[in-house]
Amino acid sequence: MLISFGPGIILETPSILSYLGIVQEVGQNVQGFKVGDHIGVGTIVNSCRSCDYCNDDLESYCAKGSVFTFNGIDVDGTVTKGGYSSFIVVHQRYCIKIPVNYPLTSAAPLLCAGITVYSPMMRHKMNQSGKSLGVIGLGGLGHMAVKFGKAFGLKVTVFSTSISKKEQALKLLGADKFVVSSDQEQMKGLAKSYDFIIDTASGDHPFDPYMALLKTGGVLALVGFPSEVKFSPASLNIDMRTISGSVTGGMKQLQEMIDFCAAHEVHPTIDIIPIQYVNEALERLAKRDVKYRFVIDIENSLK
Amino acid sequence: MLISFGPGIILETPSILSYLGIVQEVGQNVQGFKVGDHIGVGTIVNSCRSCDYCNDDLESYCAKGSVFTFNGIDVDGTVTKGGYSSFIVVHQRYCIKIPVNYPLTSAAPLLCAGITVYSPMMRHKMNQSGKSLGVIGLGGLGHMAVKFGKAFGLKVTVFSTSISKKEQALKLLGADKFVVSSDQEQMKGLAKSYDFIIDTASGDHPFDPYMALLKTGGVLALVGFPSEVKFSPASLNIDMRTISGSVTGGMKQLQEMIDFCAAHEVHPTIDIIPIQYVNEALERLAKRDVKYRFVIDIENSLK
Repeated sequence: MLISFGPGIILETPSILSYLGIVQEVGQNVQGFKVGDHIGVGTIVNSCRSCDYCNDDLESYCAKGSVFTFNGIDVDGTVTKGGYSSFIVVHQRYCIKIPVNYPLTSAAPLLCAGITVYSPMMRHKMNQSGKSLGVIGLGGLGHMAVKFGKAFGLKVTVFSTSISKKEQALKLLGADKFVVSSDQEQMKGLAKSYDFIIDTASGDHPFDPYMALLKTGGVLALVGFPSEVKFSPASLNIDMRTISGSVTGGMKQLQEMIDFCAAHEVHPTIDIIPIQYVNEALERLAKRDVKYRFVIDIENSLK
Repeated sequence: MLISFGPGIILETPSILSYLGIVQEVGQNVQGFKVGDHIGVGTIVNSCRSCDYCNDDLESYCAKGSVFTFNGIDVDGTVTKGGYSSFIVVHQRYCIKIPVNYPLTSAAPLLCAGITVYSPMMRHKMNQSGKSLGVIGLGGLGHMAVKFGKAFGLKVTVFSTSISKKEQALKLLGADKFVVSSDQEQMKGLAKSYDFIIDTASGDHPFDPYMALLKTGGVLALVGFPSEVKFSPASLNIDMRTISGSVTGGMKQLQEMIDFCAAHEVHPTIDIIPIQYVNEALERLAKRDVKYRFVIDIENSLK
């Protein structure tokens, strides 16, 4: 029931690292994977496999706690090393198959940033062509929300504190509209215009002005971690609105997302680097100087 | 298209009053209602009848603004007088039929307090027997949430700041459990125990301790109006939780609720008073001295 696979590509985030690579060996009970398959491991490598959440394909919400792929402690006491590893041995339940026509480098950010926005988008039925989506914040998560939004046929507006992101939002990512969130007049003019909002901002920001953008019955999906969430109950109640939070998603949904991205040619915008560059990359991350995710190519780094 | 009906019974709340009575006359195009029918009018008497929300049976969220039954201004400039009226003339769309075996006095509080909790309970699929519900606050809304919860087969816990409500909650209303919310030890012991919470409290209260009571994927339906809603994003994100707000519900759902209450013998706990007692009743309301709604019997007051 073990799969081991080899030198691969890693999604770089400060704390959670997923792993992409090619199967080198399979255990005798492994079904559905074979040597040579392109495979991804997301943000977790283990869970109890018997609680309500594991049974409901929500392994990352395992009642007994899942084991993170990076810096987690597995049931045998091993500390996991995530995508920094040259090889990884993992139960097949925590592997997904990457279609051969889909680059492993593109798959890497999908397994953390991608699924973090894809999961609430599917849960709140945002894949309805013609509806409108606001995306707050344009980092790794926000840029994927824009790409999924466009692939779903949504009208996508990016809300950012910085006018400097306008060109990227419209030209690089294909958003339909860009709004500087401090422009109160424009914000007021857009009141009750959006079916959905994905809030990826982890900097502190007011919620009432964004809630006011939602139509009656609209949903704000929170995936960022500001220091607090604060709003007037009227922003929620009067127009039957919802705020809902989440982190990543289960294995079944990861596979569904990768298959969707391969079929609809959705690719994250990435910066591929060798492992030798990692310290400089971390310094750039601290300055938010990346469009939009670093991917470390371990295999070519070690040649 | 007009229905007029006569001396009836009124739900007493400080601002919004619905109306119960018996049809005295019907306009020539009225279908589905006849003289002698028992009828209720909820918190609204008019809406545009053509926007997306009206078309979706959400008249109280009408894009052009609905007209409140009490102290509203109708399209002809008339100020509405709600349940204080002896007679009322209203379009059939804003009438629901009260089954003859269901007391008009019981129906009165359902059209405001009842629908305000019934609507989010149905929207978030709380009518799943065996699941668990926490009810925050035990006033007019809270006591209806307990009654609906029990009728749906839920395990119901009442959370209150006051131990004085324990006996009412358990004996009068049939709740399964009562928790004083300041008892931090008991609150911590109940972490991740509830599928749903209905928060009816309009006094200021912290949200994180209540959010922590919800299971992964749990929903807190907010129907109260504290001065603000504030919580840590971790309370929402880590366990994929949702906070959702609403006010009342549409005409179709009002009828569904009344039919449910008649079929399952769900009756609000009320205090029937004559109109002459109304000032004293308002003074008692200010002291929260009512179990759980006053109903004014206009017809018998005027005899």
